[in-house]
Amino acid sequence: MSAEYFAAFDTVRYEGPDSANDLAYRWYDKDRVVMGKRMEDHLRFAVCMWHTFCWPGSDVFGAGTFNRPWLQGPMDATNAAAKREAALAFVEKLDLPFYCFHDVDVMADAENIGDFRSSFAEAVDHLEALQAQHGRKLLWGTANLFSHPRYMAGAATNPDPEVYAWAASQVRDALEATHRLGGANYVLWGGREGYDSILNTEIGTEQENFGRFLSLVVDHKHRIGFTGTILIEPKPHEPTKHQYDFDTQTVYAFLKRFGLENEVKVNIEANHATLSGHTFEHEIAMARALGILGSIDANRGDPQNGWDTDQFPNSVEELTLAMLEVLRAGGLGNGGFNFDAKVRRQSIDAADLFHGHIGGVDTIARSLLRAAAIIEDGRLEAFRAERYAGWQGELGQMIHAEGTTLAAIADRAVSANSAPEPKSGRQEYCENLVNRF
Amino acid sequence: MSAEYFAAFDTVRYEGPDSANDLAYRWYDKDRVVMGKRMEDHLRFAVCMWHTFCWPGSDVFGAGTFNRPWLQGPMDATNAAAKREAALAFVEKLDLPFYCFHDVDVMADAENIGDFRSSFAEAVDHLEALQAQHGRKLLWGTANLFSHPRYMAGAATNPDPEVYAWAASQVRDALEATHRLGGANYVLWGGREGYDSILNTEIGTEQENFGRFLSLVVDHKHRIGFTGTILIEPKPHEPTKHQYDFDTQTVYAFLKRFGLENEVKVNIEANHATLSGHTFEHEIAMARALGILGSIDANRGDPQNGWDTDQFPNSVEELTLAMLEVLRAGGLGNGGFNFDAKVRRQSIDAADLFHGHIGGVDTIARSLLRAAAIIEDGRLEAFRAERYAGWQGELGQMIHAEGTTLAAIADRAVSANSAPEPKSGRQEYCENLVNRF
Amino acid sequence: MSAEYFAAFDTVRYEGPDSANDLAYRWYDKDRVVMGKRMEDHLRFAVCMWHTFCWPGSDVFGAGTFNRPWLQGPMDATNAAAKREAALAFVEKLDLPFYCFHDVDVMADAENIGDFRSSFAEAVDHLEALQAQHGRKLLWGTANLFSHPRYMAGAATNPDPEVYAWAASQVRDALEATHRLGGANYVLWGGREGYDSILNTEIGTEQENFGRFLSLVVDHKHRIGFTGTILIEPKPHEPTKHQYDFDTQTVYAFLKRFGLENEVKVNIEANHATLSGHTFEHEIAMARALGILGSIDANRGDPQNGWDTDQFPNSVEELTLAMLEVLRAGGLGNGGFNFDAKVRRQSIDAADLFHGHIGGVDTIARSLLRAAAIIEDGRLEAFRAERYAGWQGELGQMIHAEGTTLAAIADRAVSANSAPEPKSGRQEYCENLVNRF
Amino acid sequence: MSAEYFAAFDTVRYEGPDSANDLAYRWYDKDRVVMGKRMEDHLRFAVCMWHTFCWPGSDVFGAGTFNRPWLQGPMDATNAAAKREAALAFVEKLDLPFYCFHDVDVMADAENIGDFRSSFAEAVDHLEALQAQHGRKLLWGTANLFSHPRYMAGAATNPDPEVYAWAASQVRDALEATHRLGGANYVLWGGREGYDSILNTEIGTEQENFGRFLSLVVDHKHRIGFTGTILIEPKPHEPTKHQYDFDTQTVYAFLKRFGLENEVKVNIEANHATLSGHTFEHEIAMARALGILGSIDANRGDPQNGWDTDQFPNSVEELTLAMLEVLRAGGLGNGGFNFDAKVRRQSIDAADLFHGHIGGVDTIARSLLRAAAIIEDGRLEAFRAERYAGWQGELGQMIHAEGTTLAAIADRAVSANSAPEPKSGRQEYCENLVNRF
Repeated sequence: MSAEYFAAFDTVRYEGPDSANDLAYRWYDKDRVVMGKRMEDHLRFAVCMWHTFCWPGSDVFGAGTFNRPWLQGPMDATNAAAKREAALAFVEKLDLPFYCFHDVDVMADAENIGDFRSSFAEAVDHLEALQAQHGRKLLWGTANLFSHPRYMAGAATNPDPEVYAWAASQVRDALEATHRLGGANYVLWGGREGYDSILNTEIGTEQENFGRFLSLVVDHKHRIGFTGTILIEPKPHEPTKHQYDFDTQTVYAFLKRFGLENEVKVNIEANHATLSGHTFEHEIAMARALGILGSIDANRGDPQNGWDTDQFPNSVEELTLAMLEVLRAGGLGNGGFNFDAKVRRQSIDAADLFHGHIGGVDTIARSLLRAAAIIEDGRLEAFRAERYAGWQGELGQMIHAEGTTLAAIADRAVSANSAPEPKSGRQEYCENLVNRF
Repeated sequence: MSAEYFAAFDTVRYEGPDSANDLAYRWYDKDRVVMGKRMEDHLRFAVCMWHTFCWPGSDVFGAGTFNRPWLQGPMDATNAAAKREAALAFVEKLDLPFYCFHDVDVMADAENIGDFRSSFAEAVDHLEALQAQHGRKLLWGTANLFSHPRYMAGAATNPDPEVYAWAASQVRDALEATHRLGGANYVLWGGREGYDSILNTEIGTEQENFGRFLSLVVDHKHRIGFTGTILIEPKPHEPTKHQYDFDTQTVYAFLKRFGLENEVKVNIEANHATLSGHTFEHEIAMARALGILGSIDANRGDPQNGWDTDQFPNSVEELTLAMLEVLRAGGLGNGGFNFDAKVRRQSIDAADLFHGHIGGVDTIARSLLRAAAIIEDGRLEAFRAERYAGWQGELGQMIHAEGTTLAAIADRAVSANSAPEPKSGRQEYCENLVNRF
Repeated sequence: MSAEYFAAFDTVRYEGPDSANDLAYRWYDKDRVVMGKRMEDHLRFAVCMWHTFCWPGSDVFGAGTFNRPWLQGPMDATNAAAKREAALAFVEKLDLPFYCFHDVDVMADAENIGDFRSSFAEAVDHLEALQAQHGRKLLWGTANLFSHPRYMAGAATNPDPEVYAWAASQVRDALEATHRLGGANYVLWGGREGYDSILNTEIGTEQENFGRFLSLVVDHKHRIGFTGTILIEPKPHEPTKHQYDFDTQTVYAFLKRFGLENEVKVNIEANHATLSGHTFEHEIAMARALGILGSIDANRGDPQNGWDTDQFPNSVEELTLAMLEVLRAGGLGNGGFNFDAKVRRQSIDAADLFHGHIGGVDTIARSLLRAAAIIEDGRLEAFRAERYAGWQGELGQMIHAEGTTLAAIADRAVSANSAPEPKSGRQEYCENLVNRF
Repeated sequence: MSAEYFAAFDTVRYEGPDSANDLAYRWYDKDRVVMGKRMEDHLRFAVCMWHTFCWPGSDVFGAGTFNRPWLQGPMDATNAAAKREAALAFVEKLDLPFYCFHDVDVMADAENIGDFRSSFAEAVDHLEALQAQHGRKLLWGTANLFSHPRYMAGAATNPDPEVYAWAASQVRDALEATHRLGGANYVLWGGREGYDSILNTEIGTEQENFGRFLSLVVDHKHRIGFTGTILIEPKPHEPTKHQYDFDTQTVYAFLKRFGLENEVKVNIEANHATLSGHTFEHEIAMARALGILGSIDANRGDPQNGWDTDQFPNSVEELTLAMLEVLRAGGLGNGGFNFDAKVRRQSIDAADLFHGHIGGVDTIARSLLRAAAIIEDGRLEAFRAERYAGWQGELGQMIHAEGTTLAAIADRAVSANSAPEPKSGRQEYCENLVNRF
């Protein structure tokens, strides 16, 4: 039945901007070479299991609205298999290379730890076959350490070490499964690593336990020979009042503190970036500056709403700025663009899943083209370079030279009777320039 | 004339909660011993020069409303001296031990670098005399690197190294002045260390220049023998779109990156904390956990307004949570509570300056008493300790033991068929408990 | 079984501020007379069915954590009866006079419209008996027009008139049930009366349909002889991107437009107020100024989180400002304080339900005492009155006199060479004054 | 001197999207006919005096950075005349039809009311001549009732009726000057009509005084024969904590309350809309639904910053949604698009003023073209119409028919055993469709 769910839809193909077909790509032309690389290799798109195949269209105020066949009745082995089949079939219909999952997304429900492991193992076997059958790959796997009630007070930051150990078991299995399935990365999203009330929380203890956990995960990765990247996904709050992985710099602080800054990178989500008070492009630029840019969860939030709306990206203007930073960083390496996005609760038809993904893919593809054109044009890059040119000059060099002191620099300003000439930052010029592409 | 400005006011004294005098302290009893320390020594209150003596009551939409005598006409040597006199006299009237300043707050206007230095030097001479005369001390000094147009694109992060050198001159002088005046700390607030537009900004370059600057300042501190603490004051945005010192963890990331985490601490401002998406108490708790809690700028924001309102603190409930963290941290050391707060623009009378400070002092003093009572009562601390007791147990110890692996922890959960028992977080109980004090 | 759920708890009684009993009221002394009225009659507390008895402790990221007996298995007639019994028993244990419900909160699940009506009718019969048995009353009833998938695009603003008609059926029955159960008010909360995307929405059409609906409800109220108040509960967004009943003034605009401003009042929720960019006290003051203050949903939000957290109120400082406005308005009439608040997801014990409600009750009771003391003290009211005294003077009267023109007022200023003397707004003085109580 | 300021710049002309000239219009082709109207007549662009000619580049944290010749020294008659000349010359260079001003923007400083009036009268004489000389027109005039300290507690909502009378004098003169200069509209922006603290504020009194004021202004308009539109400009907060004209619906509530809904319309500002928790297009759509859409202040805010940044619009995507609503409303009538926008503080060159305006003009022009194309394409409009088609059907008609009752509608649902079929809202499809244009 699940195989039938998308039967009415053809595989989505590139047909160019003037296509009359609602279900075609207008900008994503996977084999088109942009700045020396195929679009598919630049973007490495992935479809997520959770929003697209597990979420029934519910929200805090109402029940599910979707009628996915595999969501009828309990999530038993049959439904779980149907869900996996539907998912891989859908990714193939979209002609996108990757998918992503949490352990619980792909398996039958299980309560005790033994059943949980065997249920997951069964799912992994099936996924391995489905990947081959549909010619799709795993961008990353992860463990869901936040939905079950046992994790209500966190996993690696839980006050109870028994919960921590449960989490260790899930992560071990999810990491090994990711390795086996050829996953390119492994993600940790701190679903409830944070606190609801500071009154009952020992932040110091929780952070040390969290650091220990991450160190153990990195160690395990090396032990099993997994060469993918370990990623942390920052988010400032929700579900908890405060999440420890607030933003990229917070994660960097954490990595530095535990000596893991060369082992772990960030998976930046657009909507998480905006909820933390930053733009998406800021978070990417900052990760680039710190050398920890790993992968991207592509979605958007709603600037008027204060929660994670996880909408499909649809702003070429915003994504162009993000893609500029990605291109400047030399790309995402073995990361990619994962659609951690969900169609709206009223978008109940199978067709809406196509519209959501096609719109997102085209938005990002078109942004890639614009960003590449801006870089190739060179004027924006040239203006930036010129603005900082003084740092290549004598004074700039002297400031960074070994042995230079604050006093020496100050003396130089004093003796020169320095009166720096103000220069326009030309923000409006830059904005207009970007808008032309 | 400035000396006369506060002539009608008596020195503010502690008169207890039942006093009918609007201009008395009801809770701040400086010699009262709380948890083994005098209140004055716990709180180390400071009055700030800028809001209280320099700001004319202007805002973005309107001119100054205050008629301070020293603000009439240009800020020449006479007015600057009058301002300094008024300030120290006021601090004495409030019977608070400290004040704080930026270089430009205390000096006559000067444009070129030579005049700037001599004008500031003259001010410092005078301040030294006034400190002795009024029996007041300097909590911290700083240099204003954001008001002059030369700093429109930042100081240590300016694209132009000439501006950087000007800043170096100001910081050298301000640091040396702070040292000479016996200042307990030296603060750097990154007024425009950030960006207005990411389009014309090289974040990586700016951060490296910023790190270099901070390293040079720390080096200079040691060269001159200043033993006070160097502090960075986090703020997420305003005046720039994005300020690099976003919050405590961002500053920690920066310090770790440049190897300065044992040299520099944070000066946490309440309103900056809330603008960055955190509570005030969160920022203090986080600084405590990271070992970088330095000092506090006491004010409050407006939860409905998205800019820095710098209002005098008036919530005992909020400050109790902050004081709990301060007490748990063992106090502020050589830091203190600086009122980086301004009376409202309609509060045009000299009396309003007293009301603002008295209200702030009493709010914090009362919060100290409540926080101390909570700690001495012990129930909240006991509940927290019990909640984390598992980490003292066998499993908790094993997790942190050298040589323990993720697999070992996971195996333990599996073999025990672990099903951790959920325990209530008792948030409402904790909140009620705190409310009783 | 449900009757047993609270068996271990005694009825909560007033024991005064110094009681050592965690489960006692410290401030809520129901028979104490404050400004001529018993506390119980001032506050008219109600317990809500939905959060306290229907919500399983789930959130967007995780399953329910509570083990309420009546939530095990499907919500059939047996479980629904058990839930009703537990609820009324709990309200009695708290010794609070009222409860509130949505139709679906109190009944067994039913899909078709006939079953829905009979299931609800059965529940109402039972509630009538339970009210008598436990000596409790209904503050208000309402219909849930947002949880079922049929309402995914709104009820009275749904693009499909069939959905509108379903909603009409639910509201008719819920209004008649409220009437029969002696309810003091009937509430409409526009759960999904708003939009997710402006692209597919005709705001004009939806607003006219909404106005028509409200007019029909008011008409029906009169037809059946219900003398309680019809209330609209403002909320700015969530679950939809934009809810039409944004805030009190938006509701007033709507009422005026459809000629209903004398028929309908507002039920103000604290957390909805803050999400709309206002303080709680602002919304009450504005409703008072417009003559539409009806009732209150008492909870609080989290200033750092952008969604409706519905936490129990715990700030006496904030509630004092709200109570000041309520007292100035002469009270809530047949409205009351309904705890539209939920314990946190980690607060899984029955005891936590008591802690949440007791803390909320005491916070509000204590705030009532403070507000009454401020009013009886008279200084704050006197300062306000003096500030506006000019409007009782000659010029103030002239401005409002019939026949006065803009030109006449302007001429008067010109001929008098008017130079109004600035007067301090004394905000800090007022804040300190309030803090003393 | 001021005439020289823009001497180096040619008049800006339309040169098409492929022009290499940074200082040309790429999309604004004033005579191009779009949906039957010239672009210039659709858009009616205006340049504002305040940001562009009065603001020196200062902010809360720093002094002015601009070196406009007319801002050197005091704003005396000579500088004021130079400013007026520069402004009209600039508007002509941009080849835009309109400008806008506050009284104080165009005149020499004056303190007493007599000097104020004569200084303003002199300015108006000069403006009349300049309008003729440069062939430019006045979109709207207004009085600045917020910058002078006398207005620190508001103008029409000031506690002191003397201030109210001063405001009446300014508004009379500004309204008459607008009439004389052929202004198309007259605007009231409630700069400080609101409150800083609810503690010292009588909201009810202030609102009644405000309503009286507006009624007097409308009356005066009719007395002098001014046929332009009176406009209120909503804003939620800043400079005050709460501004009374929060948003469009709040203004509508106010107009309805005082019977002015047919006399006054709204001037919607993009950045004010977003600060009030709405999108720009929402505010326009709502004003359209209420019949009070008057004019537009075109700018944008920063979604990460909580204050009014007044940046030049640069998002075609956002403006397309706004223009869709404007076109559906049948245009702005005698309103227009006023650039209430300022270049950034670092954009210190005269050229930056050109870049800012050219970018804004082109963004809006291009959005007009996209919106017109969407409407002419018809698919989006058709989908919306189909979605609401049921309201043209039998049930929809019956619901709105005179005499229909709630019971009749409910009975119909019951007897039909109504089970409305869910239909997809197709949000992603709509978003993709819009993105194609």
